[in-house]
Amino acid sequence: MKIVLLGSGNMATRLAIAFKAAGHHVAQIWSRNMPAASELAAKVGAEAVASMNELNQDATVYILAVSDDAISAVASTFPFKERLLVHTSGATSLDQIRPFSNCTGVFYPLQTLSKQKSVDFLDIPVGIEGSDAEVSDILLKLAATISEKATLIDSGQRMVLHVAAVFACNFTNHLYAIAEKMLSDYHMSFDLLRPLIEETARKAQFFSPATVQTGPAARNDVGTINRHLDLLQKEDGRLIAMYEMLTDSIQDLSRQKSER
Amino acid sequence: MKIVLLGSGNMATRLAIAFKAAGHHVAQIWSRNMPAASELAAKVGAEAVASMNELNQDATVYILAVSDDAISAVASTFPFKERLLVHTSGATSLDQIRPFSNCTGVFYPLQTLSKQKSVDFLDIPVGIEGSDAEVSDILLKLAATISEKATLIDSGQRMVLHVAAVFACNFTNHLYAIAEKMLSDYHMSFDLLRPLIEETARKAQFFSPATVQTGPAARNDVGTINRHLDLLQKEDGRLIAMYEMLTDSIQDLSRQKSER
Repeated sequence: MKIVLLGSGNMATRLAIAFKAAGHHVAQIWSRNMPAASELAAKVGAEAVASMNELNQDATVYILAVSDDAISAVASTFPFKERLLVHTSGATSLDQIRPFSNCTGVFYPLQTLSKQKSVDFLDIPVGIEGSDAEVSDILLKLAATISEKATLIDSGQRMVLHVAAVFACNFTNHLYAIAEKMLSDYHMSFDLLRPLIEETARKAQFFSPATVQTGPAARNDVGTINRHLDLLQKEDGRLIAMYEMLTDSIQDLSRQKSER
Repeated sequence: MKIVLLGSGNMATRLAIAFKAAGHHVAQIWSRNMPAASELAAKVGAEAVASMNELNQDATVYILAVSDDAISAVASTFPFKERLLVHTSGATSLDQIRPFSNCTGVFYPLQTLSKQKSVDFLDIPVGIEGSDAEVSDILLKLAATISEKATLIDSGQRMVLHVAAVFACNFTNHLYAIAEKMLSDYHMSFDLLRPLIEETARKAQFFSPATVQTGPAARNDVGTINRHLDLLQKEDGRLIAMYEMLTDSIQDLSRQKSER
């Protein structure tokens, strides 16, 4: 397919490289940031363009890979009413770009992407949505050339998926950071926890997390829970509240499971 | 070394197998659960014993690997005042077994262990504490035969490490479970999140988690945060409280960092 990328950040970079590697023709990179557009264009043999008026008219798909809050503004300058315009955002409804073309869609790769770190798209789920069945079909085919896990996900589901990813990844990383700070406060290295963190995530690859929950909350080991709360008294109040809330939540979920 | 294990659960099983593989002589397995003791004893060529009175007197170390709430009761029946008695619990102070022998210690492998799943101890940190320097030395040497990451950790530090592990692993797994339930409620597979979970944990192997925090909280993307909260209105109230608390905590931590 002939592809035009609108954007030059992490997502645009990783997609351009993956499309090029899959044999597609990445024709143009448009960006408000011309140096970044030129750099990426050079990488994939594309043309860097600074104005929407310079866009080729005959690309199969125009992929808008800009920050969430810029999507509407950039889409509103898209010049072709009859060309397929697609955004890549997990937290943005398809409706946000519908006004700007008669065929619109979403191409949402579910992974943390960075410019520096190369990534194998094969294993990355790609959530696809199209303004009609034909669009969905084109985007599924495009996604299948870089990923084995392309799947239709509508805007409502995608928002749920995005919130779920915040819990499973952003919040999880913050819990790592809390643990790191506690260890550092007591002169211990975060290395002590790294193998356990890796094993916990690895277990989630093969099991349902709810069924392999361990720890004092899951065992209802009140003695240990109280000793932990005593220790957390010395830290800021939020850690106690967080410990209690997560402990209660673990116990509620296991009760719900056993009542089924 | 000649080793006696008191216990027949996950910890006793994994330790007995690791010690045997490292060339130690696992002489006896004592347990209140004789069938389990016999099964484990057969695996490592040891003798299963049902009574503390049958324990060999000449082992280098007696490792108490029973559940936290049984440690005191079992230790109180240990018959040798001059033999090295060691527990394996993260949440238990050395003081709990001090009354029962003149040389006591802690041998705490920091990993989730299960009977079924074999484990390579080499990469697992082992926290060592001894009632005196000689004990610490023996236990460090023993730990070094199965792990490259043996380190001295006193009872105070070990309790902090244990709480930190609850945050980084038990609570993290619960966040996976919350995400799993949200996806399932909206007819999506947890497979969609598995690569992202793996990548998040992998990143924590190489970076300081606080420095690689991503997501709407870290970006202070108020629009997305509000859309997430709107969606969570439909779920139970605790999810909103949890989302708000973790979001605030991420923003506080990043403020603390930037003020330094």
